Amino acid sequence: MIKRTFAISLLSLSAILAPIYASAANEPIQPIKAVTPENPDVAELGKMLYFDPRLSKSGFISCNSCHNLSMGGTDNIKTSIGHKWQEGPINAPTVLNSGMNLAQFWDGRAKDLKEQAGGPIANPGEMAFTHEMAVKVVASIPQYREHFKKAFGSDTVDIDRITTAIAEFEETLVTPNSKFDQWLEGDKNALSADELEGYKLFKSSGCTQCHNGPAVGANSFQKMGMFKPYETKNPAVGRMDVTGKEEDRFVFKVPTLRNVELTYPYFHDGEAATLEEAVDIMAKIQLNREFKKDEIAKIVAFLKTLTGEQPKFDLPILPPSTNNTPRPQPF
Amino acid sequence: MIKRTFAISLLSLSAILAPIYASAANEPIQPIKAVTPENPDVAELGKMLYFDPRLSKSGFISCNSCHNLSMGGTDNIKTSIGHKWQEGPINAPTVLNSGMNLAQFWDGRAKDLKEQAGGPIANPGEMAFTHEMAVKVVASIPQYREHFKKAFGSDTVDIDRITTAIAEFEETLVTPNSKFDQWLEGDKNALSADELEGYKLFKSSGCTQCHNGPAVGANSFQKMGMFKPYETKNPAVGRMDVTGKEEDRFVFKVPTLRNVELTYPYFHDGEAATLEEAVDIMAKIQLNREFKKDEIAKIVAFLKTLTGEQPKFDLPILPPSTNNTPRPQPF
Ligand code: HEC
Ligand code: HEC
Ligand code: HEC
Ligand code: HEC
Ligand SMILES: [Ca+2]
Ligand SMILES: [Ca+2]
Repeated sequence: MIKRTFAISLLSLSAILAPIYASAANEPIQPIKAVTPENPDVAELGKMLYFDPRLSKSGFISCNSCHNLSMGGTDNIKTSIGHKWQEGPINAPTVLNSGMNLAQFWDGRAKDLKEQAGGPIANPGEMAFTHEMAVKVVASIPQYREHFKKAFGSDTVDIDRITTAIAEFEETLVTPNSKFDQWLEGDKNALSADELEGYKLFKSSGCTQCHNGPAVGANSFQKMGMFKPYETKNPAVGRMDVTGKEEDRFVFKVPTLRNVELTYPYFHDGEAATLEEAVDIMAKIQLNREFKKDEIAKIVAFLKTLTGEQPKFDLPILPPSTNNTPRPQPF
Repeated sequence: MIKRTFAISLLSLSAILAPIYASAANEPIQPIKAVTPENPDVAELGKMLYFDPRLSKSGFISCNSCHNLSMGGTDNIKTSIGHKWQEGPINAPTVLNSGMNLAQFWDGRAKDLKEQAGGPIANPGEMAFTHEMAVKVVASIPQYREHFKKAFGSDTVDIDRITTAIAEFEETLVTPNSKFDQWLEGDKNALSADELEGYKLFKSSGCTQCHNGPAVGANSFQKMGMFKPYETKNPAVGRMDVTGKEEDRFVFKVPTLRNVELTYPYFHDGEAATLEEAVDIMAKIQLNREFKKDEIAKIVAFLKTLTGEQPKFDLPILPPSTNNTPRPQPF
């Protein structure tokens, strides 16, 4: 609603902009825009917490360990390494643009980023801490309490505020201005001939049935293996775990394809090492279609135009622990 | 030499500055200055490599994992967590101001930062990779090769260039403008009464015998346990491992006390959890002196004035792996 109003008022102001909005509006994919946090102090605090390994039992693992913002918001490992080097059950999705997800996790079991953020801290296979201990650690650090005061009006530290702040920071992790968005916004030279052909193929062969909208996905749950079963040793059953319904077996959240160049390896089991492999498998099992090698190359070329500007900010400097801060227990 | 010339020329230019330099010159500790890298492109490349976990076998551990620049250039763990969660043998020293160390490591076995940087990559207990594999990974990434070209004139990737770049970046990790440096440079209000008394006690009781110079240490090897033996279960024997001499048993590089507020826990075994404990032990075993509680508090107050401005830079964005990049082997 807000977007449409915006477009109309712009149009009435300046007819020259009309073709841009018209062209984007006719496409199944829409550009994304930078987000200014509603409350910058909350987001700033959230950034610190996101980078703070003291939210884990070991003092070694932060959100950024597995969703590394130097590397597209993922760890680029098939399945993540958790506390004591436990092998994780599933591939870590990117946090980039995760504010646009219809729900969080591959099976959508968390309704939003705030609900999600409490999970990893207390997950014995990830950060292996407890909410009580995380709160105790943060509350023991006066400089953190000052940030809570600035952000929330009082220096009370609780898990609700911690996850609110982390989520607010994550909301800012938007990657605008990709080559593809430039093209959508009217710069017809932004894409090469191959990239454009790749996009046309992506549309015409039906990928946009599931990968559409501003996030190029992330807005529906779909069966993995529409025409042929997906073969994997990974035991995850997807959405069925949430709904209990047999028809939801192997239904997963359609991942965003924004920054997909950076979020290798692919699929919930991380078994597709390259984009070429992922595209080939998608075509075969979701669309019952066999692409030629050069068709795959063109689609991959298009997918790489979805890499946007990565969030740019100073490495946060964390306040030191005090004599009262519970010490990490790494071993 | 360079510093002295600088001071004299300034004096001749402006007599008003004389008291500042004169006061600093009479003190056993000198201020430190920000460093501009000789070759910014090399330092910039080094920053990326420093943050890149693909220099490790697992793809999970970077230099920044153990020398976290959000946390004073250390991991704040007694002894580090290495590849596959191995328990490290010794406490990780800070990389901040490490360019000022007379040699690298607690026992000084690496002569400089470049020689040091090759160590952890190939150390089976740390990053567990090989130099050959690290080179292969970096060389497989065209965007990295462009950075090598910009930095070194050609896009050849080898371990010599990798360690040169990391070392050049580390040289920039200087923390100027601490409260104590402001005081040294003439701002007599920079220290509180307690902090100043702490400094006087630090000098008068003999701490500056070992902790002196711009880094407040880092310029000599000294016996840990001059008057009384230091009790520890840690098997490290220090400099004796390098020289083979019995007299070097339990001789360690005197650590810098710059940013010591951030580099807890203390000593090579990480067994002193608080600065109070470390100061108390130092007094007892290095100076045969028993401080009262308020004396310790004052020295600690002084030590905290040695926290400088932390290096400030954008979180580096790393170029993605390609289909030819060897994949990490985390498990
Ligand atoms: C040990 C690795 C690890 C750590 C630490 C970790 N995550 Fe995750 N994260 C994952 C994995 C794996 C998943 C996917 C789990 C699933 O879908 O069942 C995930 C899922 C997510 C998602 C959902 C994304 C999506 O598209 O569904 C978000 C958001 C997220 N994590 C944020 C965080 C935050 C915030 C923290 C720190 C508080 C954190 N993660 C810590 C590995 C990790
Ligand atoms: C019927 C829905 C559907 C269609 C059609 C579809 N996809 Fe997907 N796509 C999904 C789902 C669901 C996943 C996640 C599956 C999983 O990980 O188990 C996915 C995953 C992907 C991934 C991996 C993303 C990641 O980060 O792991 C890529 C790349 C991809 N799709 C591209 C395509 C292309 C190209 C097409 C057309 C040839 C296509 N998809 C058609 C539903 C669909
Ligand atoms: C797994 C943890 C770990 C990793 C990864 C690691 N270090 Fe270290 N680092 C240590 C420990 C522990 C020591 C002390 C070893 C000793 O003195 O014997 C050390 C020592 C150093 C020193 C010497 C500092 C001094 O005061 O003597 C420097 C400099 C350094 N590391 C830089 C790096 C760089 C650069 C990298 C990446 C290429 C790196 N480290 C990776 C744990 C690590
Ligand atoms: C005779 C030399 C000597 C004297 C005198 C001395 N120190 Fe030290 N100091 C060392 C050495 C060597 C170490 C490292 C020992 C180790 O880790 O095994 C050290 C370590 C420390 C540390 C821990 C630093 C860290 O990062 O782990 C602190 C704090 C410290 N000294 C403060 C003091 C104070 C305060 C005094 C005076 C009361 C003092 N020292 C006197 C040699 C000395
Ligand atoms: Ca992935
Ligand atoms: Ca330490």
